[in-house]
Amino acid sequence: MNAANNDAQFDKLIVQEVSPRDGLQIEPTWVETVDKIELIDSLSTAGFTRIEAGSFVSPKAIPALRDGDAVFQQIERHPGVIYVALVPNLKGAERALAARADELNLVMSASQTHNRANMRMSCESSLMAFDDIVRYVQGSGVLLNATVATAFGCPFEGRIDEDRVVGIVDTYREMGIEGITLADTTGMANPRHVRRLVARVLERLPAAALTLHFHNTRGLGLANVLAAYEVGARRFDAALGGLGGCPFAPGASGNICTEDLVNMCDEMGIPTGVDLPTLLALSRGLPALLGHDVPGQLAKAGRNCDVHPVPEYVLQI
Amino acid sequence: MNAANNDAQFDKLIVQEVSPRDGLQIEPTWVETVDKIELIDSLSTAGFTRIEAGSFVSPKAIPALRDGDAVFQQIERHPGVIYVALVPNLKGAERALAARADELNLVMSASQTHNRANMRMSCESSLMAFDDIVRYVQGSGVLLNATVATAFGCPFEGRIDEDRVVGIVDTYREMGIEGITLADTTGMANPRHVRRLVARVLERLPAAALTLHFHNTRGLGLANVLAAYEVGARRFDAALGGLGGCPFAPGASGNICTEDLVNMCDEMGIPTGVDLPTLLALSRGLPALLGHDVPGQLAKAGRNCDVHPVPEYVLQI
Repeated sequence: MNAANNDAQFDKLIVQEVSPRDGLQIEPTWVETVDKIELIDSLSTAGFTRIEAGSFVSPKAIPALRDGDAVFQQIERHPGVIYVALVPNLKGAERALAARADELNLVMSASQTHNRANMRMSCESSLMAFDDIVRYVQGSGVLLNATVATAFGCPFEGRIDEDRVVGIVDTYREMGIEGITLADTTGMANPRHVRRLVARVLERLPAAALTLHFHNTRGLGLANVLAAYEVGARRFDAALGGLGGCPFAPGASGNICTEDLVNMCDEMGIPTGVDLPTLLALSRGLPALLGHDVPGQLAKAGRNCDVHPVPEYVLQI
Repeated sequence: MNAANNDAQFDKLIVQEVSPRDGLQIEPTWVETVDKIELIDSLSTAGFTRIEAGSFVSPKAIPALRDGDAVFQQIERHPGVIYVALVPNLKGAERALAARADELNLVMSASQTHNRANMRMSCESSLMAFDDIVRYVQGSGVLLNATVATAFGCPFEGRIDEDRVVGIVDTYREMGIEGITLADTTGMANPRHVRRLVARVLERLPAAALTLHFHNTRGLGLANVLAAYEVGARRFDAALGGLGGCPFAPGASGNICTEDLVNMCDEMGIPTGVDLPTLLALSRGLPALLGHDVPGQLAKAGRNCDVHPVPEYVLQI
């Protein structure tokens, strides 16, 4: 199927798998530490180079991820895989380093209201906390990434000024944070907006330093990936099964679905290095693990190459 | 929200609403004739210029649409709306004309196997039936459209040769059929494939004569719309709520969802003429009508401009 599409060579699209963190954090069902470790260890064999494996936030704030220390200490480290931890403050950074996280992901919303709702502090306080973390991590060899959440819109404030997003990117970089994520936290981005903002940000930092984090809340996740890829973005977050909903859109879809994304890339001839059959097997195990259906579509539909047997009556026509 | 995105002028994207036909045809729940008529009459007020309102196939083959005659006779005709009927053969065309359909849509699959499975005849027999219909309709003022089903892939045969699809388009046009639909019947298309095939077909007929019919089975429906739009396609089928699954992908999504499509266009500044609040109200009534949840996402997530109240605790930070 792909061969016929391979008349041009595409750059690799790097998928950062975030199901163990952004996927599980709002799950009402407790996933046992051993099951989280098994999921991450399985994902490590699928060809990912980056896995967001957990977070070191307050267990009261995110009880579903309260075992981040044990998870990071017990997962099998695969060579060539960077295991990322989300940390909200210096205490989280200390825990993450003790548990041998390879990279820390810090999060602040472009929207003041959303940052107060999500992080329970102002953007100014978030930046001060980031500064503490940057100084603490310095010299440890641990990598740093910072996310601009609600970069494409806020569920409270609506439209977010693009200059503000670009300004935050500059602030992060000036603080010494190399990796930047633009997050469409509640799925408000559209391909035109994505093209414009991503092109602007890529004037300021190399593609290797930029991650796009899209949610499929309004069905535009994969269209937004293509729009960003077309203007030069190369790294994208995605969650197995499309896990990770939005508390403001009950029943709507979550993160863009890893196997749906990898299938799109496979069909278009965009290399990812990720093995789709491994993903499908893992994704098909999620309903049993979580006790509910998941939004990803490829696990239900199968790949294009999974052709169906011809019905008996057809042979008689 | 849109104003800021409106720095370039886009051509109108014409949405043909197909929920009354492709949406309802596989519904296991019987939708009363009066409810079908009410749905179509409501859709007629939403700004569509084209509605596929029913079909004139054998009641044994598609029992859910066995009341096509009554539906077409009793719907309110809105000026400027073309009411399309799907017809499989001369008998269906006779019924459709008697019921005052404005346009007939004929369907044949590019895949022989799929045509035998779906239409219970060979492609050659389908073309002979088309010829009868073309001659019957001549001079009546009724418009003709013909669909190439499985144009982007077949669930039995897999890949479909693009030359074959283009050849069928030529055959249709040579037979005197003006409108052409390329249908991705089971959601196997990808944006790259779409760009290539649509560009080829648009070398042979004007954009006003071409409709793209995408299913969202593997999550690529809206990305495929944009790919086709970018190479010049202007008319797209979509179904309210994303109704209309695929029998080969149980649980997977159906047609691309009208309100998700119109939302994408509104956010990007692509005019459609369709009123999104009307669509959302109609879509939110579908679960009660059909007895199950529907795949459309915007009805769950709301529009970007539907901002949420700021939580009490945020005001105290």
